[in-house]
Amino acid sequence: MTIQTNYLPTPTGLYFEDFAVGQPLVHGVPRTITEADCTLYTALTGSRFALHCAKTVANVVGFAQMPVDNFLLFHIAFGKTVNDVSLNAVANLGYAEVTFKRPAFAGDTIKVVSEVIGLKENSNGKTGVVYVHSTAVNQDDHIVLSFKRWVMVHKKDVHTKCPAPQLPELASEVTATQQVIPAQMNLADWPDYASDSQLKASDFNVGDTYFHRDGITINDSDHSLATRLYQNNARVHFDQHMMDNSKHGKRLVYGGHIISLCRALSYNGLGNGIWLSAIHSGSHCNPSFAGDTIYAQSSILEITDVAERDDLALVKINMLGIKNNNPEQMEYLTQTIDGRKKYHSDVVLDLVLTIIMVK
Amino acid sequence: MTIQTNYLPTPTGLYFEDFAVGQPLVHGVPRTITEADCTLYTALTGSRFALHCAKTVANVVGFAQMPVDNFLLFHIAFGKTVNDVSLNAVANLGYAEVTFKRPAFAGDTIKVVSEVIGLKENSNGKTGVVYVHSTAVNQDDHIVLSFKRWVMVHKKDVHTKCPAPQLPELASEVTATQQVIPAQMNLADWPDYASDSQLKASDFNVGDTYFHRDGITINDSDHSLATRLYQNNARVHFDQHMMDNSKHGKRLVYGGHIISLCRALSYNGLGNGIWLSAIHSGSHCNPSFAGDTIYAQSSILEITDVAERDDLALVKINMLGIKNNNPEQMEYLTQTIDGRKKYHSDVVLDLVLTIIMVK
Amino acid sequence: MTIQTNYLPTPTGLYFEDFAVGQPLVHGVPRTITEADCTLYTALTGSRFALHCAKTVANVVGFAQMPVDNFLLFHIAFGKTVNDVSLNAVANLGYAEVTFKRPAFAGDTIKVVSEVIGLKENSNGKTGVVYVHSTAVNQDDHIVLSFKRWVMVHKKDVHTKCPAPQLPELASEVTATQQVIPAQMNLADWPDYASDSQLKASDFNVGDTYFHRDGITINDSDHSLATRLYQNNARVHFDQHMMDNSKHGKRLVYGGHIISLCRALSYNGLGNGIWLSAIHSGSHCNPSFAGDTIYAQSSILEITDVAERDDLALVKINMLGIKNNNPEQMEYLTQTIDGRKKYHSDVVLDLVLTIIMVK
Repeated sequence: MTIQTNYLPTPTGLYFEDFAVGQPLVHGVPRTITEADCTLYTALTGSRFALHCAKTVANVVGFAQMPVDNFLLFHIAFGKTVNDVSLNAVANLGYAEVTFKRPAFAGDTIKVVSEVIGLKENSNGKTGVVYVHSTAVNQDDHIVLSFKRWVMVHKKDVHTKCPAPQLPELASEVTATQQVIPAQMNLADWPDYASDSQLKASDFNVGDTYFHRDGITINDSDHSLATRLYQNNARVHFDQHMMDNSKHGKRLVYGGHIISLCRALSYNGLGNGIWLSAIHSGSHCNPSFAGDTIYAQSSILEITDVAERDDLALVKINMLGIKNNNPEQMEYLTQTIDGRKKYHSDVVLDLVLTIIMVK
Repeated sequence: MTIQTNYLPTPTGLYFEDFAVGQPLVHGVPRTITEADCTLYTALTGSRFALHCAKTVANVVGFAQMPVDNFLLFHIAFGKTVNDVSLNAVANLGYAEVTFKRPAFAGDTIKVVSEVIGLKENSNGKTGVVYVHSTAVNQDDHIVLSFKRWVMVHKKDVHTKCPAPQLPELASEVTATQQVIPAQMNLADWPDYASDSQLKASDFNVGDTYFHRDGITINDSDHSLATRLYQNNARVHFDQHMMDNSKHGKRLVYGGHIISLCRALSYNGLGNGIWLSAIHSGSHCNPSFAGDTIYAQSSILEITDVAERDDLALVKINMLGIKNNNPEQMEYLTQTIDGRKKYHSDVVLDLVLTIIMVK
Repeated sequence: MTIQTNYLPTPTGLYFEDFAVGQPLVHGVPRTITEADCTLYTALTGSRFALHCAKTVANVVGFAQMPVDNFLLFHIAFGKTVNDVSLNAVANLGYAEVTFKRPAFAGDTIKVVSEVIGLKENSNGKTGVVYVHSTAVNQDDHIVLSFKRWVMVHKKDVHTKCPAPQLPELASEVTATQQVIPAQMNLADWPDYASDSQLKASDFNVGDTYFHRDGITINDSDHSLATRLYQNNARVHFDQHMMDNSKHGKRLVYGGHIISLCRALSYNGLGNGIWLSAIHSGSHCNPSFAGDTIYAQSSILEITDVAERDDLALVKINMLGIKNNNPEQMEYLTQTIDGRKKYHSDVVLDLVLTIIMVK
C-alpha cells in the first residue's frame, strides 16, 4: 500500500496582523509546579534566598511549605504565553505592572490567559508591537501573577493594511497599595543566619548600591534546560541550525534566565530581600549568549514602610545585568543622550522591582 | 605495612558468546520513578503533552496523578538492561513489539528482566546479533512495559564457535487488540486549551504529514544528563577520552534521547496524541552528536476507532528524526533501492508508533 | 530626582586574618533536601547504588524511604560552609574525620555550623591555612555529619602580623567504634540483583584492586549545575570571565564533583558497598576542568567484621581519581619520593574511606 503524503501546515504562533485589541488568548498546557521545579531552579541559578531553600525558615515566616520563587513562577507563566504571543517575535521589548498577587506552592497548577491590550504597526511595515496583559491563575482560580509585556512581532505579509495604533495605558509603577504582602508572611522572627547576617531594610539608604561581585558564566545546556523547563518554545533559544544564519550566529539566551541569574547573584548584599511584590519596568538591553559571564548591580531607589508592620519594608531596587565586564571599571552603565537612556553594550538587563525585605 | 595490589577483573557486560537462547537476565538496580524524574524530563526535552504537565488535566482524564511519560518509562526500563545486554554492543539495531501495558506513576518502582530470544552470529566472526525480550514490572509485579530489541554485540574471541542462528519471530506490528488503553483514561472532557486547540483524530486523514518546524540543538550536557538519569551506562555516551579514537571521534548521543526530542517536537501538530500504546518498529538510522539540531516529521499511517469509545482513537504514526536539515528542502528522506529502505544521511530515526489521540 | 549612588562594599568571605581559633561560624541558608536533589544527583553522576535508587530496596534494608546519598549530603553541607570558610581560598587542602552520624532523608533540613580549630600562616605572608570542624544537623538538631577540612586562604593584607601557628590534632582515621551503622540498616535480605550480583565483603581480600573501567567526561554545565545545586558559591567554579586570567584560564571543577563521579564509577565492582561510614582522609591532588574524562580505581585496605553482625562488614578503601588516562597503562599513580607521597599529574583525587558492604 502506498500512502499519499499530504503536508499539513504546522501550527505557528500568531503574526502581527492576527492580533486584535481585546482579543483573549487562552494559553495551552497548564503546568503543575513541582518541588523538583524549585530544586532544579536552584541548580540552574544557584539562588540562595533562604525562604525557598529551607522548610524550617519558611515555617518561621508563616508558610506551611516553601513558596515557589517569584521568578520561577514568572518564567513558567511567561513560557505559557510564548506559543501564542511571541513565537514570531523579533524582540521582547519590555515589561510593566508585574504584580505577584499570591504565593504559589509545589503542587499548584498554573493556567495562563492573556488579553491583547495594544497594537502598533511599525513604519517599516514588516513588524508591529503587540501589548498583552497576562494573568496566571492557580487550580482554585486565584490570580497568582499579573503582568503586561510588549513584543515586536513579524507581520505575515508586508502588504497587509493594519489598523491605526492603539496604545495601552501602562502605569510607570505598581503602587505600594497594589503590591501584595502574602497574608501568611511575618518576618518578625527571621533568623539572621538564614541570610548570612546581611543588612536589613533599616540599614539601607536610598542610593546605596551593590556591585554583587560574583559572576556566573552561562553554558548552552544551562539556558536550554531552563528554557525547556519553562516550556518556552521560542525557536531562537534552541535551534542552532536556524541561528547559524542569524545576525549573531548563535542561540539567544532567554532573557528570563538572565533575570534569574541577576536575582540569584543579588543574594550577596540583598539576602534579606526575600520576596518580590512587583516588577515596575524591565527591558533586555542587549542579547546574551552561551559563554557570557553575567554580573549584577543593584541600587536602592526607595524604602517604604508598611503601616503597622515592624517586620518588613518594601524596597524598590534598580537591578542591572552586565556581561563580561566589571561595573566598577566601566565608564558608564547607562547614559542619557538627548533625553533618552542609552545602555553600554555590556549591559543586558535593566529592571526596576520591589522586594519585601526583613526590617 | 605494604599491601600487595591484586587487580581484579572489573565486571563487564556479556559478550556474544555469553548469551544463550532462553537465558533469563535479571537486571540490577531497580528504580523508583520520582516526580523529579518527570520534571527533569521536561527540562531535558521541552515536552508539552499536557497529561504529564498538569495534575488538573490528568484528573479530567481520569488519573489521580500525572502518569509518567511513556518514553521516560521506556528509557528507564531500557537503561536497566544495558549493563547485561548492550555494554559490549556495536549498535542498537531495532525495536519491535513495544507495548505499554499499564501507566506508571511517580513513586512506582520499576524492575526489569529480559530473556534472550534469538542469536545470530555475523559472518565476520567478530560480532553477532542478540535478540532480547524485556519486561518491566512495578512494585506490585504488574507489567508496565514489554519490548523486544536486538543489538549487535562484540564477541570476546573471534575464534569461538557459535551455535547456528536462532531467529525469533517478531511481529511486524502490535495489533490493536494487544494495545492497552489505560483503564482510567477517558478523554471525553479533554479541554481544548490543554493542547492549544490542535487537530483531533477525527480531523486527520491517512497520509497527513507534519514537518514539526521546531528544532532542538543537543548539548553535551543535555544528553549526558538524560542518559545518566536513565542509568544507562554504555560507555560510548560518556567517555570522550575513549571516543577520541573512535570512528567519529565524539561521544554518541543515546538514541533514546533522539526519540524523546522527536516526540517532544511532535507536540506541535500532534498535541492531542497524548499517550503511546505501542511502538511497532524502530531504528536509529544514523548517529547523532552534540551540536546536532534535531527536527521531526510525522505521517499518519492509520486511524483506528475503538469499539464503544467516542472519546479517542488509535493513530498510527511514522515519525522520522532529521538532523541539521529541513525535510521540506531535502530531495528524499528514505528511498527504496533494490527493495531495501535506504535513509538519507541526515535521517537519524525511523519509528512507527501508535498514539492514543483525543477524538 | 537624581539619586546619589553610594557604593557599599559587597560582603566577601573571611580572609586569613579574620579567623581566630575557637571562633564559631554559623553558616547561612539552611537547606531542605528534596527528593529532586536525589534524582538530580543521579542525573549528574550516573550513580547506581540501589539503596538510593529503589524504595523497595530501601525497605528491605530497613529504611521507610530511600536515604540521601552520603556524598550528596556531604556536598550540601560543604556548600553551606563555603561562604564563610573558603570564599577566599586558594586551595582546598584536605579532609579528615568525616563521619556520617545518621542518615538523612528527603524532607530533612540541614543547617551547618563550624568552629575554627587551627590556623597557620604561610611563610610567604600572603596566605595561611585555616582548619575547621563543621557539623551538619537536621531539623531535630541531630548531627548527621561531622567533618574537618583545611584550606589555604588569602590574607587581606600581606603586612598583617598573625599569631603563631595553632595546629589541631587530626586523627589519621575514624576508628571503627566511632563509625555509625545506621540503626535501621539490616542487609541480611539484600537482594543480589540489586547490585548486579557483584562481589560481597566476604569475597574480597586486602589488596584487591579494581580499575573501574568506565569513564565519564565532565561538561561545563554538569559541574556548574552540581555546584549550584549545592549552593557552593566559590567563584572559581562559575566565573569564566575572571578565570580567563587565572593560571589555567579555565573554571575549576568543584573537587566534590570529582569525588561523586569516582564514587559513582566505583559501583562497577563495589556495588555492594552501599553506604559510607567515614572518610578518613582525602585530598584533591590536581585540578580538573570541563572536557576531562574521569576514571576511578579502588583498593581494599581493610575488611573489618562487626560484632554480632553477619549481614555486613566495614570495608576500608583507597579510591583514586584519574583523568584522561588509564591506570593500567600508567607507570605509577603515586610515588614515594624522599618519604613524601607524590602524585602523577593525571591523578586528581586520593580518598581513604570506609564503606558498609553487604557480607
